[in-house]
Amino acid sequence: MKRSNYFIKTYFDDPVDEVSKNAKLLHRAGFTNRLMSGVYSFLPLGVKVLCKIENIVRKEMNNLGAQECLLPALQPRQIWDRTNRWEEMDDILFKFKGAGDRELTLGPTHEEVVTSVIADIIQSHKDLPVLMYQIQTKFRNETRAKSGILRGREFKMKDLYSFHSSQDELDKFYKKVVVAYKNIFDEIGIGKSTFLTVADGGAFSKVSHEFQTVTPAGEDKIYKDENSGIAINEEIIDNEEVLKEFIPHYKIGDNKKYKSVNATEVGNIFKLSTKFSKPLKGTFKAEDGQEKNVIMGCYGIGISRLMGTVVECLADKKGLNWPLNIAPFHIYLIGINADDTTKEIYNNLISNGIEVLLDDRTVSIGNKLNEAELLGLPFRVVVSEKTLARGKSFVEVQTRDDMKIEIIEVNTLIKNIKNKLTNDEGDRYEL
Amino acid sequence: MKRSNYFIKTYFDDPVDEVSKNAKLLHRAGFTNRLMSGVYSFLPLGVKVLCKIENIVRKEMNNLGAQECLLPALQPRQIWDRTNRWEEMDDILFKFKGAGDRELTLGPTHEEVVTSVIADIIQSHKDLPVLMYQIQTKFRNETRAKSGILRGREFKMKDLYSFHSSQDELDKFYKKVVVAYKNIFDEIGIGKSTFLTVADGGAFSKVSHEFQTVTPAGEDKIYKDENSGIAINEEIIDNEEVLKEFIPHYKIGDNKKYKSVNATEVGNIFKLSTKFSKPLKGTFKAEDGQEKNVIMGCYGIGISRLMGTVVECLADKKGLNWPLNIAPFHIYLIGINADDTTKEIYNNLISNGIEVLLDDRTVSIGNKLNEAELLGLPFRVVVSEKTLARGKSFVEVQTRDDMKIEIIEVNTLIKNIKNKLTNDEGDRYEL
Repeated sequence: MKRSNYFIKTYFDDPVDEVSKNAKLLHRAGFTNRLMSGVYSFLPLGVKVLCKIENIVRKEMNNLGAQECLLPALQPRQIWDRTNRWEEMDDILFKFKGAGDRELTLGPTHEEVVTSVIADIIQSHKDLPVLMYQIQTKFRNETRAKSGILRGREFKMKDLYSFHSSQDELDKFYKKVVVAYKNIFDEIGIGKSTFLTVADGGAFSKVSHEFQTVTPAGEDKIYKDENSGIAINEEIIDNEEVLKEFIPHYKIGDNKKYKSVNATEVGNIFKLSTKFSKPLKGTFKAEDGQEKNVIMGCYGIGISRLMGTVVECLADKKGLNWPLNIAPFHIYLIGINADDTTKEIYNNLISNGIEVLLDDRTVSIGNKLNEAELLGLPFRVVVSEKTLARGKSFVEVQTRDDMKIEIIEVNTLIKNIKNKLTNDEGDRYEL
Repeated sequence: MKRSNYFIKTYFDDPVDEVSKNAKLLHRAGFTNRLMSGVYSFLPLGVKVLCKIENIVRKEMNNLGAQECLLPALQPRQIWDRTNRWEEMDDILFKFKGAGDRELTLGPTHEEVVTSVIADIIQSHKDLPVLMYQIQTKFRNETRAKSGILRGREFKMKDLYSFHSSQDELDKFYKKVVVAYKNIFDEIGIGKSTFLTVADGGAFSKVSHEFQTVTPAGEDKIYKDENSGIAINEEIIDNEEVLKEFIPHYKIGDNKKYKSVNATEVGNIFKLSTKFSKPLKGTFKAEDGQEKNVIMGCYGIGISRLMGTVVECLADKKGLNWPLNIAPFHIYLIGINADDTTKEIYNNLISNGIEVLLDDRTVSIGNKLNEAELLGLPFRVVVSEKTLARGKSFVEVQTRDDMKIEIIEVNTLIKNIKNKLTNDEGDRYEL
């Protein structure tokens, strides 16, 4: 893509009305545009990142055997009353009336809707399990929204729901989801700073689990043990009875070894048991002929929040820094007094499936180099008299992540990119 | 995909609370599930169709040089006041208050938002044109919603906005959009019954254009001339001054030749001139140094409505009937006393990139044959003693559209499908 044909507007200064690092940088680099506090337009560069994150998540969900659905944002009060959440979640639900004075809300989550669908459809144990996910826009009436796309009033989520005929089946599937989530965070490039934490389980389960990414911008506190890699959410760090039950080899007093760090929740997984299937009448005929409530799990990942988390974790003072798998383009290409060779190299890269943004504007070289740092594409590639002296197939490559510069052959660069696109960071968590 | 692993629940009877053909059949065949009037969940089969329609639309938008963005549903009253549409569109806007008593609405369209973004960003004629589209969920507070997914309270739209420095540029781009839309309707399989109509232009343009698909379920009336293929919307059929100006070779009295048919609007294209850029201060510095309002066009396609339109146009009493390019699967595969050969054929088809739903349930053959008709996949393929008698590579193929049956070799079927997937219906409209 030639930059002159692409809709990118960048800014030298931070926007005056933002405090979070992600909102400032994403605005300056032309990825987002704020409509109101907590509500953002995603411009073409931003949509590309969202789309790549979505596709990584989608692939892992499909690998689990889950099927994609699309549930409505607009929801009637009636189903929220059945679970008592119309009142319980009053502080974050947008509430209003539609035609015919019908009371409505916008879903911040979809347990009520999906369980209603399942209650309509499931009849026998033979119909189970059902594994359904969606990637959809959600709404929360946040009192204050200062964290950019980390915590918006409108945001994209992937939510997966699983329905089983037994607790044992749920337990097995739950473990598979942990592996899928680990893969996702690895592929997106924040695997090393993302921890599976033991979290409070609410009324229906002793514990749940969250995936928390360590960043100063995080609104949560987690405690982690450097040696074991185990992490615990703040709300249960003092509940040693639970810790003893759920953390392997845990001894009373061990919680003193865990250190306090800020983190942001990028995913959660939750065994809901019959919390929703009871009030919403989600039943099935079991093998023994009895009518039973379906056993349920739910599993969330914030898609737009993940994008913000990557910025918080990886960007530096000079600008953004995208991991290769979710970068809007792989390469920022600049030619200095070498138009013809630059075009040849551009065409060569494109024909090899490499995504290139060619800065073809008539601005200073300094401006172009600064923009490359601000946009944060993984590789800045320069074609110049210096590289031409080595030969037409040589380019100067700067890796955005470590800022290292080297002169290499284009084909070596293509090979490197293709190799890195398929690698992930390997296994690390256990449940 | 084996049907036993896929989430499909079908019904023999129509749902009691639906009147439209599309809502009845989509529910019966397990594509959608109604949450409330005008608000539907899309189940996995339904999501597959939506997704294929979206990708056809996306391809044509990208071919136009347009770039994908994602604008918020949640919008502050302030920008709607500037264009006077907070009051003008009062009957279809959901209105409510968020945190801090801020007045909000949910976008049924995005001229206000996108023009605000552009006003923020565009400075010079060098920044133009800007061509941005999104595929996004929209909301309309319909008083009555009886048309299934043809007219929902929540629905998916593709909306494209173009911004130009001159009327001439807009005029040229507008014609390109007509060609792109024609391609879309052809690829989706309703090209032959979809007409480009001359429609009322509102305050800022003498005419606009709509794409109307002829179907008894349509809420609009259009008048069409069988000979020329030209069609006219009801609201301007008697405005011969305009007809004479915009229809080639039009002679006074010609409108009497046009016949009345029902149709549903699947797309519209509109020259907005400066209607939105004036109140929202979307200006640019022209080549002559003057500050001018940007010239704008907007172009919509209802994604979920298109899915409903296909059902209204093509389904019959026995069930749905999906065109190949948007079918959730290409083939409904049934084996009758031929499990091993059926599996071999299934694997052969899959490895050739053909999308197959294998009915592996332990139900009667009659049930399977009925389900094939209800789901409406383009090809029903049966492997049986009859086909085995011809040889292991032979199958019985029924084309859903014309119900014709023939016994052919699997490789011939694969070739046919691959050929048809890339064909469209050819050119037909002109502007």
